[in-house]
Amino acid sequence: MARIALDAMGGDNAPREIVAGAVAAAEEGMDIVLVGDEVICKDLLAEHGATLPVVHASEVIGMGEDAGKGVREKPDASVVRCARLVRHGEAAGFVSAGSTGAAMAAASVVIGRARGVQRAALATIFPTPGNATVVLDTGANTEVKPDHLAQFGVMGAVVAEVYVGLDTPRVGLLNIGEEQAKGRSLEKTAFTMLEAAPINFVGNIEGRDLAAGKADVIVTDGFTGNVLLKTAEGAAFWVIGLAMEALATLEQTHLEAVLPALRRVRHLTDSESTGGAHLVGLKGVAVIAHGSSSGTAILNALTLARTGAEQDLVGRVASRLAAR
Amino acid sequence: MARIALDAMGGDNAPREIVAGAVAAAEEGMDIVLVGDEVICKDLLAEHGATLPVVHASEVIGMGEDAGKGVREKPDASVVRCARLVRHGEAAGFVSAGSTGAAMAAASVVIGRARGVQRAALATIFPTPGNATVVLDTGANTEVKPDHLAQFGVMGAVVAEVYVGLDTPRVGLLNIGEEQAKGRSLEKTAFTMLEAAPINFVGNIEGRDLAAGKADVIVTDGFTGNVLLKTAEGAAFWVIGLAMEALATLEQTHLEAVLPALRRVRHLTDSESTGGAHLVGLKGVAVIAHGSSSGTAILNALTLARTGAEQDLVGRVASRLAAR
Repeated sequence: MARIALDAMGGDNAPREIVAGAVAAAEEGMDIVLVGDEVICKDLLAEHGATLPVVHASEVIGMGEDAGKGVREKPDASVVRCARLVRHGEAAGFVSAGSTGAAMAAASVVIGRARGVQRAALATIFPTPGNATVVLDTGANTEVKPDHLAQFGVMGAVVAEVYVGLDTPRVGLLNIGEEQAKGRSLEKTAFTMLEAAPINFVGNIEGRDLAAGKADVIVTDGFTGNVLLKTAEGAAFWVIGLAMEALATLEQTHLEAVLPALRRVRHLTDSESTGGAHLVGLKGVAVIAHGSSSGTAILNALTLARTGAEQDLVGRVASRLAAR
Repeated sequence: MARIALDAMGGDNAPREIVAGAVAAAEEGMDIVLVGDEVICKDLLAEHGATLPVVHASEVIGMGEDAGKGVREKPDASVVRCARLVRHGEAAGFVSAGSTGAAMAAASVVIGRARGVQRAALATIFPTPGNATVVLDTGANTEVKPDHLAQFGVMGAVVAEVYVGLDTPRVGLLNIGEEQAKGRSLEKTAFTMLEAAPINFVGNIEGRDLAAGKADVIVTDGFTGNVLLKTAEGAAFWVIGLAMEALATLEQTHLEAVLPALRRVRHLTDSESTGGAHLVGLKGVAVIAHGSSSGTAILNALTLARTGAEQDLVGRVASRLAAR
């Protein structure tokens, strides 16, 4: 059973919702260690009538803080302690809903990259119709080289195998047209490298293909991927808002019939149901949950981390990259 | 009255829907000149019982063709003829629903940039709630320098004044976080330049803010802007599809009550209602309509082009850039 360290102090709803998520995960048989203020954590656990191992951490890196500086200057920050448990083999992975920058910095500095990995990437799993779609990088590296994108293709394929359960995921390169000659010099060179990589490369993919099922993995730099992620969220939110507004004119009986269906749609498209992003390419599993995570979102993130640990995401990424 | 040249041969539904749009525009009092195969255009006009001026063009640049090569090697292509009418002052602007690349190439090569403009940009007007939002560049320049982004900010502000009717549009820089230090070196330098520009610069804007009304103009490079545009389209389409699917389980009477509202939402978010993108920074107005434009979409695009011509978009961009 793979143990997962959980940053109890990170996130808008920390520590209350984080502890609630941990308790729910433990009830499902997961092996969780809470990392944070020991007194607070134990008090909250007592409210649930639960006992979980707690590793004390006296500090927190806030959302607005400089992440690199925070990791260097706060060795006792909860997210740094989480990463250290992974580094020392006391946990197979960690989950944090705190500052994404701090979690990335702690993971990179403390856990370190797996052999052969040039850049760790943030992989987000979109709950698209049919199979989910893995997009990477969604924010770890704002500026990349073509070879980094080729590695992201290989790492993303492993993420889709492990988390989406696909045998030979189709990997696409995010671009502004389907033809090979499209895009920046970055994409033109990466295209050739992705063709040569040990993956099922299906060519260029456009932003509108995200939900169209044309690829299981979409590769891009961390700036563009972050824009794609947030634009999709914003557009989904916008359309649901428009629909709610349009339907508000309905008679009460019709409205009551419709609302449950629309709530299901909202749930399908919200960040809760995705569970979090993965920092992939490290010597350990790292899942970064949404800052606004509820207990349910934390449970989902912990489930993802456990799956990654049990299915040896780390070892598979390293061996696949070595095959290039 | 500003005359607008219309490429009758470009687009998936050309020439039939294009001519239909021209006839509708003429009925509203617009001054249109059709550019395309004279015999075909006159036949279609006769079907409508309409007479409009037609300028003959014997060739077409197809969607799959190399745009630059097409413009060089097909001087009698309809979109090239359109641009030439603008260059020679016989039209104030042109509209094409054909290849975006060909329209951009024809406009740049034949009409040319206005004085002081380093790069023409493609500006798309999103029908966001409240006021529409102008995003540029959505595809003309995949790689740009910080100073180009600063110019896009000025040009985008003029587009929002002319087409959205705003007095002091708020201009934002697309980035992956709100803080000034976020983004690539491109954004970091552009931020300072935009602060110094003669516009109402409101700082960094994220993809999720597109529909949130935080800015009236969003500035970015043509690669990222194109990804944003297509991702928003794809996500909107996805959510509407999910909603339709969820609602399909409703009883017939409820469903009948709901569908008109959802159709309104679909209409609000589809490319039809936006009318097209503007190539801004040229010595003439150029509106590029969606390839799948219907007659109604063409009418909207023609209306935009006329507004741009009548409100002197070209002169205002040049004088505003000169004020930098």
